[in-house]
Amino acid sequence: MQQITSPNNPRVKEWAGLLEKKNRDKHLKYVIEGIHLVQEALKARADLECVCYEIERGIPAELSEAAAASLDVEWIGVTAAIIAKCTDAKTPQPVFAIARKNRGELEPLLTEERSLVVVLDGVQDPGNVGTIIRSADAVGASGVIVGLGCADIYNPKVIRSTMGSLFHLPVIEGDLADILPQAKARGIRLVGTSLQAAASCYAYDFTGPVWLLFGSEARGLSANVRELMDDGLLIPMQGQAESLNVAMAASVLLFEAQRQRYYRQ
Amino acid sequence: MQQITSPNNPRVKEWAGLLEKKNRDKHLKYVIEGIHLVQEALKARADLECVCYEIERGIPAELSEAAAASLDVEWIGVTAAIIAKCTDAKTPQPVFAIARKNRGELEPLLTEERSLVVVLDGVQDPGNVGTIIRSADAVGASGVIVGLGCADIYNPKVIRSTMGSLFHLPVIEGDLADILPQAKARGIRLVGTSLQAAASCYAYDFTGPVWLLFGSEARGLSANVRELMDDGLLIPMQGQAESLNVAMAASVLLFEAQRQRYYRQ
Repeated sequence: MQQITSPNNPRVKEWAGLLEKKNRDKHLKYVIEGIHLVQEALKARADLECVCYEIERGIPAELSEAAAASLDVEWIGVTAAIIAKCTDAKTPQPVFAIARKNRGELEPLLTEERSLVVVLDGVQDPGNVGTIIRSADAVGASGVIVGLGCADIYNPKVIRSTMGSLFHLPVIEGDLADILPQAKARGIRLVGTSLQAAASCYAYDFTGPVWLLFGSEARGLSANVRELMDDGLLIPMQGQAESLNVAMAASVLLFEAQRQRYYRQ
Repeated sequence: MQQITSPNNPRVKEWAGLLEKKNRDKHLKYVIEGIHLVQEALKARADLECVCYEIERGIPAELSEAAAASLDVEWIGVTAAIIAKCTDAKTPQPVFAIARKNRGELEPLLTEERSLVVVLDGVQDPGNVGTIIRSADAVGASGVIVGLGCADIYNPKVIRSTMGSLFHLPVIEGDLADILPQAKARGIRLVGTSLQAAASCYAYDFTGPVWLLFGSEARGLSANVRELMDDGLLIPMQGQAESLNVAMAASVLLFEAQRQRYYRQ
Protein backbone atom coordinates (compact mmCIF):
# COMPACT_ATOMS: atom_id res chain seq x y z
CA MET A 1 0.00 0.00 0.00
CA GLN A 2 1.11 3.52 -0.82
CA GLN A 3 2.09 5.80 2.05
CA ILE A 4 2.83 9.50 2.40
CA THR A 5 4.20 10.71 5.73
CA SER A 6 5.75 14.09 4.95
CA PRO A 7 3.48 17.12 5.22
CA ASN A 8 5.79 18.76 2.68
CA ASN A 9 5.05 16.19 0.02
CA PRO A 10 3.91 18.10 -3.09
CA ARG A 11 0.66 16.14 -3.33
CA VAL A 12 -0.15 17.00 0.29
CA LYS A 13 0.49 20.65 -0.49
CA GLU A 14 -1.89 20.48 -3.44
CA TRP A 15 -4.56 18.74 -1.34
CA ALA A 16 -4.29 21.23 1.52
CA GLY A 17 -4.62 24.04 -1.02
CA LEU A 18 -8.02 22.66 -2.05
CA LEU A 19 -9.49 24.12 1.14
CA GLU A 20 -9.42 27.41 -0.80
CA LYS A 21 -11.83 28.01 -3.66
CA LYS A 22 -9.21 29.49 -5.99
CA ASN A 23 -7.21 26.27 -5.82
CA ARG A 24 -10.32 24.11 -6.27
CA ASP A 25 -11.07 26.15 -9.40
CA LYS A 26 -7.47 25.84 -10.65
CA HIS A 27 -7.06 22.09 -10.11
CA LEU A 28 -10.76 21.18 -10.68
CA LYS A 29 -10.58 19.02 -7.56
CA TYR A 30 -12.01 19.12 -4.06
CA VAL A 31 -11.75 17.36 -0.69
CA ILE A 32 -14.34 14.99 0.79
CA GLU A 33 -13.97 14.62 4.57
CA GLY A 34 -14.88 11.81 6.91
CA ILE A 35 -16.00 8.21 6.68
CA HIS A 36 -19.66 8.80 5.89
CA LEU A 37 -19.10 11.23 3.02
CA VAL A 38 -16.27 9.18 1.51
CA GLN A 39 -18.49 6.11 1.74
CA GLU A 40 -21.31 7.94 -0.05
CA ALA A 41 -18.90 9.16 -2.73
CA LEU A 42 -17.59 5.63 -3.32
CA LYS A 43 -21.12 4.20 -3.43
CA ALA A 44 -22.20 6.81 -5.94
CA ARG A 45 -19.05 6.20 -8.04
CA ALA A 46 -17.94 9.81 -7.74
CA ASP A 47 -14.79 10.56 -9.73
CA LEU A 48 -12.15 10.05 -7.01
CA GLU A 49 -8.42 10.51 -7.44
CA CYS A 50 -7.52 8.94 -4.12
CA VAL A 51 -8.71 8.05 -0.62
CA CYS A 52 -6.32 8.89 2.23
CA TYR A 53 -6.64 7.06 5.55
CA GLU A 54 -4.65 7.30 8.75
CA ILE A 55 -1.80 4.79 8.63
CA GLU A 56 -2.00 3.89 12.32
CA ARG A 57 -5.71 3.14 12.21
CA GLY A 58 -5.74 1.51 8.78
CA ILE A 59 -8.59 1.63 6.30
CA PRO A 60 -11.82 2.16 8.29
CA ALA A 61 -13.93 -1.00 8.45
CA GLU A 62 -16.84 0.81 6.78
CA LEU A 63 -14.70 1.35 3.69
CA SER A 64 -12.83 -1.94 3.46
CA GLU A 65 -15.22 -3.50 0.99
CA ALA A 66 -15.03 -0.46 -1.24
CA ALA A 67 -11.26 -0.45 -0.94
CA ALA A 68 -11.11 -3.97 -2.30
CA ALA A 69 -13.48 -3.15 -5.17
CA SER A 70 -12.35 0.32 -6.24
CA LEU A 71 -9.47 -0.54 -8.50
CA ASP A 72 -9.36 2.82 -10.19
CA VAL A 73 -8.91 4.77 -6.92
CA GLU A 74 -5.55 5.13 -5.15
CA TRP A 75 -5.67 4.23 -1.43
CA ILE A 76 -2.96 6.09 0.43
CA GLY A 77 -1.94 5.78 4.08
CA VAL A 78 -1.10 9.18 5.59
CA THR A 79 -0.31 10.60 9.02
CA ALA A 80 -2.87 12.25 11.31
CA ALA A 81 -0.97 15.52 10.77
CA ILE A 82 -1.51 15.29 7.02
CA ILE A 83 -5.22 14.65 7.53
CA ALA A 84 -5.46 17.66 9.84
CA LYS A 85 -3.68 19.77 7.22
CA CYS A 86 -5.99 18.74 4.37
CA THR A 87 -9.35 18.90 6.12
CA ASP A 88 -11.54 21.66 7.49
CA ALA A 89 -13.53 19.75 10.12
CA LYS A 90 -12.93 20.65 13.75
CA THR A 91 -13.18 17.04 14.89
CA PRO A 92 -10.34 14.87 13.59
CA GLN A 93 -11.30 12.64 10.66
CA PRO A 94 -9.70 9.25 10.02
CA VAL A 95 -10.09 9.60 6.25
CA PHE A 96 -10.51 12.01 3.36
CA ALA A 97 -10.75 11.69 -0.40
CA ILE A 98 -9.68 13.88 -3.28
CA ALA A 99 -12.32 14.10 -6.00
CA ARG A 100 -12.37 15.59 -9.46
CA LYS A 101 -15.08 18.16 -10.00
CA ASN A 102 -17.80 16.80 -12.19
CA ARG A 103 -20.25 19.37 -13.36
CA GLY A 104 -23.00 17.00 -14.43
CA GLU A 105 -24.93 17.57 -17.62
CA LEU A 106 -27.54 20.27 -18.07
CA GLU A 107 -29.28 18.60 -21.02
CA PRO A 108 -31.12 15.85 -19.05
CA LEU A 109 -32.56 18.48 -16.70
CA LEU A 110 -33.94 20.34 -19.70
CA THR A 111 -35.44 17.31 -21.41
CA GLU A 112 -36.75 15.21 -18.52
CA GLU A 113 -40.52 14.89 -18.83
CA ARG A 114 -41.36 16.04 -15.31
CA SER A 115 -38.17 17.93 -14.58
CA LEU A 116 -38.10 19.20 -10.98
CA VAL A 117 -35.04 21.37 -10.39
CA VAL A 118 -33.99 23.79 -7.67
CA VAL A 119 -32.24 26.89 -9.00
CA LEU A 120 -30.16 28.94 -6.56
CA ASP A 121 -29.52 32.60 -7.30
CA GLY A 122 -27.03 34.17 -4.89
CA VAL A 123 -27.67 31.84 -1.94
CA GLN A 124 -24.53 32.51 0.06
CA ASP A 125 -24.74 30.52 3.25
CA PRO A 126 -22.93 27.18 2.80
CA GLY A 127 -25.30 25.46 5.24
CA ASN A 128 -28.33 26.64 3.26
CA VAL A 129 -26.87 25.50 -0.07
CA GLY A 130 -25.94 22.09 1.35
CA THR A 131 -29.27 21.59 3.09
CA ILE A 132 -31.20 22.50 -0.06
CA ILE A 133 -29.19 19.94 -2.06
CA ARG A 134 -30.06 17.37 0.63
CA SER A 135 -33.78 18.18 0.45
CA ALA A 136 -33.75 18.11 -3.35
CA ASP A 137 -32.17 14.67 -3.18
CA ALA A 138 -34.72 13.55 -0.59
CA VAL A 139 -37.71 14.20 -2.86
CA GLY A 140 -35.95 12.74 -5.88
CA ALA A 141 -35.60 16.05 -7.71
CA SER A 142 -33.92 15.97 -11.12
CA GLY A 143 -31.10 18.22 -10.02
CA VAL A 144 -29.89 21.48 -8.52
CA ILE A 145 -28.51 24.42 -10.49
CA VAL A 146 -26.24 26.76 -8.57
CA GLY A 147 -25.85 30.20 -10.10
CA LEU A 148 -22.80 32.46 -9.95
CA GLY A 149 -22.49 34.23 -6.61
CA CYS A 150 -23.73 31.30 -4.52
CA ALA A 151 -21.60 29.51 -1.95
CA ASP A 152 -19.17 27.17 -3.71
CA ILE A 153 -20.71 23.68 -3.78
CA TYR A 154 -17.23 22.22 -3.21
CA ASN A 155 -16.77 24.20 0.02
CA PRO A 156 -16.30 21.64 2.83
CA LYS A 157 -19.22 23.14 4.78
CA VAL A 158 -21.55 22.72 1.83
CA ILE A 159 -20.41 19.14 1.27
CA ARG A 160 -20.91 18.32 4.96
CA SER A 161 -24.41 19.81 4.96
CA THR A 162 -25.41 17.71 1.95
CA MET A 163 -24.66 14.55 3.98
CA GLY A 164 -23.70 12.80 0.74
CA SER A 165 -26.56 14.08 -1.40
CA LEU A 166 -24.04 15.99 -3.52
CA PHE A 167 -23.16 12.60 -5.03
CA HIS A 168 -26.76 11.46 -5.59
CA LEU A 169 -28.10 13.95 -8.11
CA PRO A 170 -26.70 16.37 -10.69
CA VAL A 171 -25.57 19.61 -9.03
CA ILE A 172 -24.55 22.01 -11.75
CA GLU A 173 -22.82 25.37 -11.47
CA GLY A 174 -23.62 27.82 -14.21
CA ASP A 175 -24.74 31.21 -15.41
CA LEU A 176 -28.49 31.51 -14.87
CA ALA A 177 -28.73 34.18 -17.60
CA ASP A 178 -27.66 31.47 -20.02
CA ILE A 179 -29.47 28.46 -18.52
CA LEU A 180 -32.92 29.79 -17.59
CA PRO A 181 -33.91 30.96 -21.10
CA GLN A 182 -33.13 27.45 -22.37
CA ALA A 183 -35.52 26.01 -19.78
CA LYS A 184 -38.25 28.49 -20.71
CA ALA A 185 -37.81 27.60 -24.38
CA ARG A 186 -38.54 23.94 -23.50
CA GLY A 187 -41.77 24.84 -21.76
CA ILE A 188 -40.47 24.43 -18.20
CA ARG A 189 -42.28 26.73 -15.73
CA LEU A 190 -39.92 28.94 -13.71
CA VAL A 191 -41.48 29.42 -10.30
CA GLY A 192 -40.43 31.64 -7.42
CA THR A 193 -41.83 32.67 -4.08
CA SER A 194 -43.22 36.14 -3.82
CA LEU A 195 -44.92 37.98 -0.98
CA GLN A 196 -47.05 39.82 -3.56
CA ALA A 197 -48.14 36.56 -5.18
CA ALA A 198 -51.80 35.74 -5.40
CA ALA A 199 -51.40 31.97 -5.87
CA SER A 200 -50.90 29.68 -2.89
CA CYS A 201 -48.40 26.88 -3.38
CA TYR A 202 -51.14 24.46 -2.35
CA ALA A 203 -53.31 25.53 -5.29
CA TYR A 204 -50.42 25.41 -7.75
CA ASP A 205 -49.94 22.41 -10.04
CA PHE A 206 -46.46 20.99 -9.51
CA THR A 207 -47.02 17.89 -11.64
CA GLY A 208 -45.56 19.31 -14.84
CA PRO A 209 -41.94 20.31 -15.49
CA VAL A 210 -41.17 23.03 -12.97
CA TRP A 211 -38.00 24.70 -11.75
CA LEU A 212 -38.04 26.38 -8.34
CA LEU A 213 -36.06 29.62 -8.06
CA PHE A 214 -34.59 30.77 -4.74
CA GLY A 215 -32.71 34.01 -4.20
CA SER A 216 -30.21 35.33 -1.71
CA GLU A 217 -30.96 35.33 2.03
CA ALA A 218 -30.77 39.12 2.16
CA ARG A 219 -32.09 40.35 -1.17
CA GLY A 220 -34.11 37.54 -2.74
CA LEU A 221 -33.97 36.93 -6.49
CA SER A 222 -31.82 39.19 -8.63
CA ALA A 223 -33.71 41.46 -11.03
CA ASN A 224 -32.60 39.49 -14.11
CA VAL A 225 -33.84 36.20 -12.71
CA ARG A 226 -37.06 37.72 -11.42
CA GLU A 227 -37.81 38.92 -14.94
CA LEU A 228 -37.61 35.36 -16.24
CA MET A 229 -39.95 34.01 -13.54
CA ASP A 230 -43.24 32.62 -14.91
CA ASP A 231 -45.23 32.14 -11.69
CA GLY A 232 -44.96 33.75 -8.27
CA LEU A 233 -46.13 31.59 -5.39
CA LEU A 234 -47.07 32.35 -1.84
CA ILE A 235 -46.21 29.89 0.92
CA PRO A 236 -49.20 30.59 3.17
CA MET A 237 -48.33 31.25 6.81
CA GLN A 238 -50.87 31.47 9.60
CA GLY A 239 -48.32 32.82 12.06
CA GLN A 240 -46.35 36.00 12.56
CA ALA A 241 -43.01 35.18 10.91
CA GLU A 242 -42.42 37.56 8.02
CA SER A 243 -40.62 34.99 5.94
CA LEU A 244 -38.99 31.59 5.98
CA ASN A 245 -35.33 30.67 5.90
CA VAL A 246 -34.48 29.94 2.24
CA ALA A 247 -33.70 26.29 2.96
CA MET A 248 -37.07 25.88 4.73
CA ALA A 249 -38.92 27.54 1.85
CA ALA A 250 -37.16 25.22 -0.60
CA SER A 251 -38.02 22.16 1.49
CA VAL A 252 -41.67 23.14 1.83
CA LEU A 253 -42.07 23.60 -1.95
CA LEU A 254 -40.05 20.49 -2.83
CA PHE A 255 -42.11 18.32 -0.49
CA GLU A 256 -45.35 19.88 -1.74
CA ALA A 257 -44.29 19.04 -5.31
CA GLN A 258 -43.47 15.49 -4.23
CA ARG A 259 -46.78 15.17 -2.38
CA GLN A 260 -48.76 16.25 -5.41
CA ARG A 261 -46.83 13.90 -7.66
CA TYR A 262 -46.84 10.78 -5.50
CA TYR A 263 -48.87 11.07 -2.30
CA ARG A 264 -52.06 12.91 -3.09
CA GLN A 265 -54.81 11.38 -0.97
CA MET B 1 -30.57 60.67 27.80
CA GLN B 2 -28.50 58.22 29.80
CA GLN B 3 -24.99 57.43 28.59
CA ILE B 4 -22.35 54.88 29.49
CA THR B 5 -18.91 55.27 27.94
CA SER B 6 -16.62 53.18 30.12
CA PRO B 7 -16.21 49.51 29.15
CA ASN B 8 -15.43 48.93 32.84
CA ASN B 9 -18.84 50.12 33.99
CA PRO B 10 -20.33 47.31 36.11
CA ARG B 11 -23.48 47.13 33.99
CA VAL B 12 -21.37 46.71 30.85
CA LYS B 13 -19.49 43.91 32.57
CA GLU B 14 -22.75 42.17 33.42
CA TRP B 15 -24.05 42.58 29.87
CA ALA B 16 -20.85 41.25 28.29
CA GLY B 17 -21.04 38.28 30.63
CA LEU B 18 -24.42 37.36 29.16
CA LEU B 19 -22.64 36.00 26.09
CA GLU B 20 -21.98 32.97 28.30
CA LYS B 21 -24.80 30.61 29.23
CA LYS B 22 -23.79 30.34 32.89
CA ASN B 23 -24.23 34.09 33.30
CA ARG B 24 -27.52 34.10 31.40
CA ASP B 25 -28.72 31.40 33.80
CA LYS B 26 -27.46 33.36 36.83
CA HIS B 27 -28.91 36.75 35.91
CA LEU B 28 -31.95 35.39 34.00
CA LYS B 29 -31.19 37.89 31.25
CA TYR B 30 -29.94 37.73 27.66
CA VAL B 31 -28.74 39.97 24.84
CA ILE B 32 -30.69 40.82 21.69
CA GLU B 33 -28.44 42.08 18.89
CA GLY B 34 -29.11 44.35 15.95
CA ILE B 35 -31.86 46.65 14.75
CA HIS B 36 -34.23 44.05 13.33
CA LEU B 37 -34.28 41.79 16.38
CA VAL B 38 -34.55 44.69 18.84
CA GLN B 39 -37.42 46.04 16.73
CA GLU B 40 -39.19 42.67 16.84
CA ALA B 41 -38.64 42.45 20.59
CA LEU B 42 -40.11 45.92 21.13
CA LYS B 43 -43.08 45.18 18.86
CA ALA B 44 -43.79 41.96 20.70
CA ARG B 45 -43.48 43.73 24.06
CA ALA B 46 -40.68 41.43 25.22
CA ASP B 47 -39.55 42.10 28.77
CA LEU B 48 -36.64 44.49 28.11
CA GLU B 49 -34.39 46.05 30.74
CA CYS B 50 -32.74 48.47 28.34
CA VAL B 51 -31.87 49.25 24.75
CA CYS B 52 -28.30 50.42 24.10
CA TYR B 53 -27.51 52.39 20.94
CA GLU B 54 -24.30 53.89 19.64
CA ILE B 55 -24.00 57.47 20.94
CA GLU B 56 -22.44 58.83 17.77
CA ARG B 57 -25.14 57.44 15.50
CA GLY B 58 -28.04 58.07 17.85
CA ILE B 59 -31.18 55.93 18.12
CA PRO B 60 -31.65 54.16 14.77
CA ALA B 61 -34.54 55.65 12.78
CA GLU B 62 -36.30 52.27 12.71
CA LEU B 63 -36.54 52.38 16.51
CA SER B 64 -37.31 56.04 17.13
CA GLU B 65 -41.05 55.57 17.35
CA ALA B 66 -40.64 52.71 19.80
CA ALA B 67 -38.15 54.79 21.81
CA ALA B 68 -40.76 57.49 22.26
CA ALA B 69 -43.44 54.98 23.25
CA SER B 70 -41.53 52.52 25.44
CA LEU B 71 -41.59 54.34 28.74
CA ASP B 72 -40.72 51.29 30.81
CA VAL B 73 -37.48 50.60 28.90
CA GLU B 74 -34.21 52.46 29.58
CA TRP B 75 -32.58 53.86 26.42
CA ILE B 76 -28.84 54.17 26.94
CA GLY B 77 -26.24 55.68 24.63
CA VAL B 78 -23.01 53.65 24.61
CA THR B 79 -19.75 53.58 22.65
CA ALA B 80 -19.05 51.32 19.68
CA ALA B 81 -16.47 49.55 21.87
CA ILE B 82 -19.14 48.70 24.44
CA ILE B 83 -21.41 47.34 21.72
CA ALA B 84 -18.57 45.18 20.38
CA LYS B 85 -17.90 43.89 23.89
CA CYS B 86 -21.53 42.95 24.56
CA THR B 87 -22.41 41.35 21.22
CA ASP B 88 -21.46 38.19 19.43
CA ALA B 89 -22.13 39.21 15.80
CA LYS B 90 -19.13 39.52 13.49
CA THR B 91 -20.55 42.56 11.73
CA PRO B 92 -20.79 45.63 13.99
CA GLN B 93 -24.29 46.33 15.30
CA PRO B 94 -25.53 49.84 16.08
CA VAL B 95 -27.81 48.61 18.85
CA PHE B 96 -28.46 45.83 21.35
CA ALA B 97 -31.01 45.21 24.07
CA ILE B 98 -30.89 43.43 27.41
CA ALA B 99 -33.96 41.29 28.01
CA ARG B 100 -35.24 39.37 30.98
CA LYS B 101 -35.80 35.67 30.34
CA ASN B 102 -39.46 34.90 30.16
CA ARG B 103 -40.27 31.24 30.14
CA GLY B 104 -43.82 31.50 28.90
CA GLU B 105 -46.55 29.37 30.37
CA LEU B 106 -46.93 25.66 29.73
CA GLU B 107 -50.60 25.50 30.66
CA PRO B 108 -52.04 27.14 27.50
CA LEU B 109 -50.11 24.69 25.33
CA LEU B 110 -51.71 21.81 27.25
CA THR B 111 -55.24 23.14 27.11
CA GLU B 112 -55.47 24.72 23.65
CA GLU B 113 -58.09 22.89 21.62
CA ARG B 114 -55.90 22.19 18.59
CA SER B 115 -52.53 22.52 20.28
CA LEU B 116 -49.68 22.23 17.75
CA VAL B 117 -46.32 22.22 19.52
CA VAL B 118 -42.78 21.36 18.48
CA VAL B 119 -40.84 19.49 21.17
CA LEU B 120 -37.05 19.42 20.88
CA ASP B 121 -35.12 16.63 22.57
CA GLY B 122 -31.35 17.16 22.45
CA VAL B 123 -31.26 19.30 19.30
CA GLN B 124 -27.83 20.84 19.71
CA ASP B 125 -27.14 22.98 16.69
CA PRO B 126 -28.12 26.60 17.44
CA GLY B 127 -29.04 27.22 13.80
CA ASN B 128 -31.40 24.24 13.80
CA VAL B 129 -33.09 25.29 17.04
CA GLY B 130 -33.53 28.86 15.81
CA THR B 131 -34.78 27.83 12.38
CA ILE B 132 -37.31 25.42 13.90
CA ILE B 133 -38.66 28.21 16.14
CA ARG B 134 -38.99 30.38 13.01
CA SER B 135 -40.89 27.67 11.12
CA ALA B 136 -43.15 26.98 14.10
CA ASP B 137 -43.95 30.68 14.23
CA ALA B 138 -44.57 30.73 10.46
CA VAL B 139 -47.36 28.14 10.61
CA GLY B 140 -48.87 29.71 13.73
CA ALA B 141 -47.95 26.80 16.02
CA SER B 142 -49.00 27.10 19.67
CA GLY B 143 -45.42 27.02 20.91
CA VAL B 144 -42.06 25.28 21.10
CA ILE B 145 -40.80 23.24 24.05
CA VAL B 146 -37.04 22.92 24.33
CA GLY B 147 -35.84 20.00 26.45
CA LEU B 148 -32.71 19.84 28.58
CA GLY B 149 -29.60 19.21 26.49
CA CYS B 150 -30.71 21.35 23.55
CA ALA B 151 -28.87 24.47 22.40
CA ASP B 152 -29.70 27.34 24.77
CA ILE B 153 -32.55 29.35 23.22
CA TYR B 154 -30.90 32.54 24.53
CA ASN B 155 -27.65 31.80 22.68
CA PRO B 156 -27.09 34.72 20.24
CA LYS B 157 -26.90 32.32 17.28
CA VAL B 158 -30.27 30.81 18.14
CA ILE B 159 -31.84 34.24 18.55
CA ARG B 160 -30.41 35.38 15.20
CA SER B 161 -31.72 32.28 13.43
CA THR B 162 -35.23 32.86 14.79
CA MET B 163 -35.28 36.26 13.02
CA GLY B 164 -37.55 37.56 15.76
CA SER B 165 -39.85 34.55 16.01
CA LEU B 166 -38.56 33.92 19.54
CA PHE B 167 -40.74 36.88 20.57
CA HIS B 168 -43.84 35.76 18.66
CA LEU B 169 -44.80 32.50 20.33
CA PRO B 170 -44.18 30.74 23.66
CA VAL B 171 -40.77 29.04 23.66
CA ILE B 172 -40.47 27.09 26.89
CA GLU B 173 -37.44 25.33 28.35
CA GLY B 174 -38.21 22.36 30.51
CA ASP B 175 -37.77 18.74 31.46
CA LEU B 176 -39.55 16.58 28.90
CA ALA B 177 -39.86 13.73 31.41
CA ASP B 178 -42.09 16.04 33.41
CA ILE B 179 -43.93 17.82 30.57
CA LEU B 180 -44.74 15.06 28.07
CA PRO B 181 -46.77 12.87 30.46
CA GLN B 182 -48.94 15.91 31.23
CA ALA B 183 -49.64 16.31 27.51
CA LYS B 184 -50.48 12.62 27.12
CA ALA B 185 -52.87 12.86 30.08
CA ARG B 186 -54.75 15.64 28.24
CA GLY B 187 -55.19 13.51 25.15
CA ILE B 188 -52.53 15.24 23.05
CA ARG B 189 -50.93 12.87 20.50
CA LEU B 190 -47.13 12.73 20.75
CA VAL B 191 -45.80 12.18 17.25
CA GLY B 192 -42.28 11.51 16.05
CA THR B 193 -40.59 10.57 12.81
CA SER B 194 -39.39 7.03 12.49
CA LEU B 195 -37.77 5.18 9.62
CA GLN B 196 -39.56 2.03 10.76
CA ALA B 197 -42.93 3.77 10.75
CA ALA B 198 -45.71 2.42 8.61
CA ALA B 199 -47.78 5.61 8.45
CA SER B 200 -46.97 8.35 5.96
CA CYS B 201 -47.25 11.90 7.25
CA TYR B 202 -49.60 12.61 4.34
CA ALA B 203 -52.06 9.97 5.58
CA TYR B 204 -51.85 11.14 9.20
CA ASP B 205 -54.52 13.40 10.67
CA PHE B 206 -52.88 16.55 12.03
CA THR B 207 -56.14 18.36 12.73
CA GLY B 208 -56.38 17.35 16.40
CA PRO B 209 -54.06 18.35 19.24
CA VAL B 210 -50.64 17.05 18.25
CA TRP B 211 -47.11 17.64 19.50
CA LEU B 212 -44.21 16.92 17.14
CA LEU B 213 -41.11 15.38 18.73
CA PHE B 214 -37.66 15.89 17.20
CA GLY B 215 -34.45 14.37 18.53
CA SER B 216 -30.76 15.13 18.32
CA GLU B 217 -29.02 15.46 14.95
CA ALA B 218 -26.79 12.47 15.70
CA ARG B 219 -28.90 10.10 17.78
CA GLY B 220 -32.54 11.02 17.26
CA LEU B 221 -34.99 10.85 20.16
CA SER B 222 -33.73 9.73 23.55
CA ALA B 223 -35.06 6.37 24.78
CA ASN B 224 -37.27 7.99 27.45
CA VAL B 225 -38.96 10.28 24.98
CA ARG B 226 -39.33 7.57 22.36
CA GLU B 227 -41.20 5.48 24.92
CA LEU B 228 -43.76 8.23 25.37
CA MET B 229 -44.32 8.61 21.61
CA ASP B 230 -47.84 7.70 20.46
CA ASP B 231 -47.40 7.65 16.68
CA GLY B 232 -44.35 7.19 14.47
CA LEU B 233 -44.54 8.87 11.10
CA LEU B 234 -42.59 8.45 7.92
CA ILE B 235 -41.78 11.46 5.76
CA PRO B 236 -41.89 9.73 2.38
CA MET B 237 -38.86 10.38 0.18
CA GLN B 238 -38.63 9.39 -3.47
CA GLY B 239 -34.92 10.14 -3.63
CA GLN B 240 -31.72 8.69 -2.23
CA ALA B 241 -31.13 10.86 0.86
CA GLU B 242 -31.18 8.64 3.94
CA SER B 243 -32.72 11.29 6.14
CA LEU B 244 -33.54 14.96 6.39
CA ASN B 245 -31.88 17.67 8.41
CA VAL B 246 -33.92 18.02 11.63
CA ALA B 247 -35.01 21.57 10.79
CA MET B 248 -36.20 20.41 7.35
CA ALA B 249 -38.13 17.51 8.87
CA ALA B 250 -39.76 19.87 11.36
CA SER B 251 -40.69 22.32 8.61
CA VAL B 252 -42.16 19.63 6.38
CA LEU B 253 -44.38 18.28 9.20
CA LEU B 254 -45.36 21.74 10.47
CA PHE B 255 -46.40 22.86 7.00
CA GLU B 256 -48.24 19.59 6.36
CA ALA B 257 -50.15 20.14 9.62
CA GLN B 258 -50.94 23.70 8.56
CA ARG B 259 -52.01 22.55 5.08
CA GLN B 260 -54.41 19.99 6.52
CA ARG B 261 -55.84 22.52 8.95
CA TYR B 262 -56.27 25.49 6.62
CA TYR B 263 -55.45 24.79 3.00
CA ARG B 264 -56.85 21.40 2.10
CA GLN B 265 -58.05 21.62 -1.49
